[in-house]
Amino acid sequence: MEGVDYLSDERKKTQFDVEAMKVAWAGSREALQLSDRMAKLVANDPAFEKFTRPMMGRKELMKNTLRKAAHGWKLIVDLRLTEEEAKWLRLYIDEPAYTDLHWGMFVPAIEGQGTEEQKKKWLPLAQKMQIIGCYAQTELGHGSNVQGLETTATFDPRTDEFVIHSPTLTSSKWWPGGLGKVSTHAVVYARLIVGGEFHGVHGFIVQLRSLEDHSPLPGITVGDIGMKFGNGAYNTMDNGVLRFDHVRIPRDQMLMRVTQVTKEAKIVQSDVPRQLIYGTMVYVRQTIVADASKALSRAVCIATRYSAVRRQFGSRNGGPETQVIDYKTQQSRLFPLLASAYAFRFVGEWLKWLYMDVKQRLAANDFSTLPEAHACTAGLKSLTTTATADGIEECRKLCGGHGYLVSSGLPELFAVYIPACTYEGDNVVLLLQVARFLVKTVSELGYKKPVGTTAYMGRVATLMQNNCAVQTAEGWLNPGAIVEAFESRAARMAVRCGRQLAKFENPEEGFAELSADLVEAAVAHCQLIVVSKFVEKLQQDIPGKGVKQTLEVLCYVYALFLLHKHQGDFLATGYLTPKQASLANDQLRTLYSKVRPNAIALVDSFSYTDHYLGSILGCYDGNVYPKLYEAAWKDPLNDSDVVDGFHEYVQPILKQKVRTAKL
Amino acid sequence: MEGVDYLSDERKKTQFDVEAMKVAWAGSREALQLSDRMAKLVANDPAFEKFTRPMMGRKELMKNTLRKAAHGWKLIVDLRLTEEEAKWLRLYIDEPAYTDLHWGMFVPAIEGQGTEEQKKKWLPLAQKMQIIGCYAQTELGHGSNVQGLETTATFDPRTDEFVIHSPTLTSSKWWPGGLGKVSTHAVVYARLIVGGEFHGVHGFIVQLRSLEDHSPLPGITVGDIGMKFGNGAYNTMDNGVLRFDHVRIPRDQMLMRVTQVTKEAKIVQSDVPRQLIYGTMVYVRQTIVADASKALSRAVCIATRYSAVRRQFGSRNGGPETQVIDYKTQQSRLFPLLASAYAFRFVGEWLKWLYMDVKQRLAANDFSTLPEAHACTAGLKSLTTTATADGIEECRKLCGGHGYLVSSGLPELFAVYIPACTYEGDNVVLLLQVARFLVKTVSELGYKKPVGTTAYMGRVATLMQNNCAVQTAEGWLNPGAIVEAFESRAARMAVRCGRQLAKFENPEEGFAELSADLVEAAVAHCQLIVVSKFVEKLQQDIPGKGVKQTLEVLCYVYALFLLHKHQGDFLATGYLTPKQASLANDQLRTLYSKVRPNAIALVDSFSYTDHYLGSILGCYDGNVYPKLYEAAWKDPLNDSDVVDGFHEYVQPILKQKVRTAKL
Repeated sequence: MEGVDYLSDERKKTQFDVEAMKVAWAGSREALQLSDRMAKLVANDPAFEKFTRPMMGRKELMKNTLRKAAHGWKLIVDLRLTEEEAKWLRLYIDEPAYTDLHWGMFVPAIEGQGTEEQKKKWLPLAQKMQIIGCYAQTELGHGSNVQGLETTATFDPRTDEFVIHSPTLTSSKWWPGGLGKVSTHAVVYARLIVGGEFHGVHGFIVQLRSLEDHSPLPGITVGDIGMKFGNGAYNTMDNGVLRFDHVRIPRDQMLMRVTQVTKEAKIVQSDVPRQLIYGTMVYVRQTIVADASKALSRAVCIATRYSAVRRQFGSRNGGPETQVIDYKTQQSRLFPLLASAYAFRFVGEWLKWLYMDVKQRLAANDFSTLPEAHACTAGLKSLTTTATADGIEECRKLCGGHGYLVSSGLPELFAVYIPACTYEGDNVVLLLQVARFLVKTVSELGYKKPVGTTAYMGRVATLMQNNCAVQTAEGWLNPGAIVEAFESRAARMAVRCGRQLAKFENPEEGFAELSADLVEAAVAHCQLIVVSKFVEKLQQDIPGKGVKQTLEVLCYVYALFLLHKHQGDFLATGYLTPKQASLANDQLRTLYSKVRPNAIALVDSFSYTDHYLGSILGCYDGNVYPKLYEAAWKDPLNDSDVVDGFHEYVQPILKQKVRTAKL
Repeated sequence: MEGVDYLSDERKKTQFDVEAMKVAWAGSREALQLSDRMAKLVANDPAFEKFTRPMMGRKELMKNTLRKAAHGWKLIVDLRLTEEEAKWLRLYIDEPAYTDLHWGMFVPAIEGQGTEEQKKKWLPLAQKMQIIGCYAQTELGHGSNVQGLETTATFDPRTDEFVIHSPTLTSSKWWPGGLGKVSTHAVVYARLIVGGEFHGVHGFIVQLRSLEDHSPLPGITVGDIGMKFGNGAYNTMDNGVLRFDHVRIPRDQMLMRVTQVTKEAKIVQSDVPRQLIYGTMVYVRQTIVADASKALSRAVCIATRYSAVRRQFGSRNGGPETQVIDYKTQQSRLFPLLASAYAFRFVGEWLKWLYMDVKQRLAANDFSTLPEAHACTAGLKSLTTTATADGIEECRKLCGGHGYLVSSGLPELFAVYIPACTYEGDNVVLLLQVARFLVKTVSELGYKKPVGTTAYMGRVATLMQNNCAVQTAEGWLNPGAIVEAFESRAARMAVRCGRQLAKFENPEEGFAELSADLVEAAVAHCQLIVVSKFVEKLQQDIPGKGVKQTLEVLCYVYALFLLHKHQGDFLATGYLTPKQASLANDQLRTLYSKVRPNAIALVDSFSYTDHYLGSILGCYDGNVYPKLYEAAWKDPLNDSDVVDGFHEYVQPILKQKVRTAKL
């Protein structure tokens, strides 16, 4: 069995250079090598085994995660890994842990909001992990609305301290990862109260636990908030609850880069632009988009490989049944997700560039592109995470019954992924922000030139007037025609919303009343961004035999799939005729046939190890059934032939003694 | 705190008679009373507590389920519950268990496929639970395609026995519930081989385990297939794997109602019509539709109540923030699901009638309505289970971050529900069957009058020709206009598919190539059925102040929501103009405002106990936050202040000793 590749026939069909596609996916040859090196380091280290994770009780699970995190940190220290290498290592360990919040939120919060002095004091401690921190913002009763937080930080000038307090039950900090059982410190967001007056919500560094014995400090009540969705999954994380009973901290533990409170209880604003916070949001959200392509591509890799292994119906003369991947119903659900994974990868790459651009501009006090960049990243965060969450579950369904087994990897992938739709901005709330920006852009068209991803709005007159010119199914194989269609749809929907809003006397009431339609307009705009960035990517030089051609097919699949799915928008705005929409759908079928021979190679190009995939159905060699069979016997229930509880609870039934049995 | 109703303000807004609505939902006053009685019996019995379920390891979980099942059986015996009462009792215990398969599949299989003699022998044993049975059909390599099963049952005339055998790894029985650890017997589906020839797939009663010590019998390898999606959820079920090594059973354990094998190795067909099997499928699938309305209504109840409790943004002058349920974005996602729950309830009720009708006709050898009834139930099974699975997850998202907590009840509800999309016919495979029936119906229109739910096809010429006449938003408040719109859309899509298929020389190739479009046509047909059965329901007398009026609003919400979501279909077929589609959307917004004051009462009308809901977010009194806070401390991680593993795996990091630590 060893070494046989059950998917080798599939791999022989490939029409492009897989190694070159791997480079295109990774971004560069160096990035691919680094990523592969870290993936193998994890996959070959038995300390990072994860098969038994979903079977563990909560305590065992947490202890196991602490062990892995320590082992990971040891590797980082021992091998002197760079920050970039360490990031990839943690990613491939593939287990949510307190370290995610320490490195991803606590350290950046101090870097971004601390003064030079504060950074000098706290960053070395955090970077050596002499302290472990988390980010305590959301509360039991308060999520999206940061200004509604109830925790108070009252300045006491007599002692030069802040008093951190939880005045109500709903003010309890709730959800922060790493808070419950591990963090020694937190950046706590609280309402600043000076001289009895409210001065906005700010961050404060608060020590939670003793650095000696780890017990909670006086005035601190801290614990885990309990189990979350799924087996294993996010239950490896100690999302926490935290209450303060008049906890005092020195004044210099308020993060004061932007707003300062002086010893004399004066509020001083520094000359650091407040817009910096939006720069951070752009950063965080672009990483979420990158993660979306990662998660979706994993699910797609599993579903694609298993669709080539699995056979159902269509046997002729007793021969093998048809591979499931050959059914058009399967292709029409799977291939758009495959194309989406690539689309999200490339838009994520572009967002990374956008963030660098914003950062440079901010450094030069140029805030002109910030609102557009902010709206764009908010919208793409929403679009990609929603599509990825739905896509993972669709991939699970595409694996039939076996997708429901934990050993398929898909249940845990879904459970661990879905919070991305809620954290860092609820996806619907974000789309409303995009819609607000779009409506504003439309209303200002007369005197303000739209920039960046809204530049197309500058041609709104043309976009409203000219309808689609495509006459044949082949006519849709035209990037210009595709982008024009998405631009026209988005522009027309935004303009239509603007007109409807104008009918309301109170604009806020109108916005509330029409919000469901505004969300649809925002989606149209965001889809346009993804489509056009995919098209732009293909205008670049992409080396390797057949690589660019194959990506072009995926780009068309992505765009025409969306066009078909949302044909209501395209028809309602009058841009397309039913005939043209139908031609797009015809072309889509043809494109699926072009994807088919390359499907396995396209998921091989993600360069994922079997360890990272964590799926029997998705294993590289396709030898699914013996592995499923073997894995079953490892379930604790199979420790004995006769199940625990049989004598107490089943035998009395069989022996007709249930009435007198002690249950 | 005790006894305070935090949702009482909401309940005061109600514009209809809640008790009468409960009767309308339950089907009759008697049904409501019976259901309520069983629900309370379970809710008040501490033996059925389920809060800790998601935190249990697999073995503990299974033992706990065996205990509950025994306790439930004891109640059934002690209280001499009727079959109907027992069914409701099991439903409210709300924990998948081997008993589901024993009563739901094993007993019916013998009843449906056994001879009178076989029934006389086996049914009393099963009904007293002296034996426990399951239904072993699917195999590791074979799901939807029953004819592809590999297990063999070879008749040996020398001993008058069948030899049951698993010739390959992929022939291992895989998935049957109750098989892994509990069942003593199974109805096993296998390829009948007599005289070296294959005679179709049939059912055989096979004993698996000793009735004395429960150990597997010689030649039987049986076990659990391992963990499935989610915490608790379906992991209370021992879905099993089963292999046979030449296991011999007496000839009279083949279920012989339809096909008999004589002692002399002759195959004899009885005069029992083979179509009976379709009658059984109609039965099973109508129960799945009933379950869909149950599951969706639970999720909607939780999301609706919590949306009234939860507040976010919109605070004025420091007053409370806006209830989330007042946001149009929330309403536009939640209220269509509320309407769907009612729509599925009523179409389920009608399906129950349809099954009775089919049963009577079969008894009178009238098979004329069977193909239509079969297609109809297949389609409705697909439509309602897909919508319910998606709807539960949408409800979870509508609860914001807290929906991700297991204590919200939604993760487990989702995990336990989703197999319904796959079992008893994969939802896409079923839609293809519906499509096949539709295309056939269209092709035979010239000489065969379509019946039942396809009767509208008889007016196809009119439906193709006449377009929508609605001129105002109010014009959509017209059941005739609504049904006509859905009929026209469905008819036009089916006819269009027929025309496209006609272009192919080989009809099967055409069917395969166009299958994604055929699925869309099938969905359009199934949505029409649900809409028109809702409309028909409202033509009946429904007593109670405001009940019918409120249901009318829900019916319009359901229909216009679908119309908006699928406006592409309505526009592409030319039945609607963009203006008319836009008017429907305007009306939809107005309808949401009409649902709003009744939302809480509409979910109260499901008459679910807090025990059955199993959700802190959905509790009747709305006192969510103290309960969430209290529940958190019950997580095992909170047993101690300092987490297990701290000394081994966290302290060495903090103390900078990770390089030398033993991990």
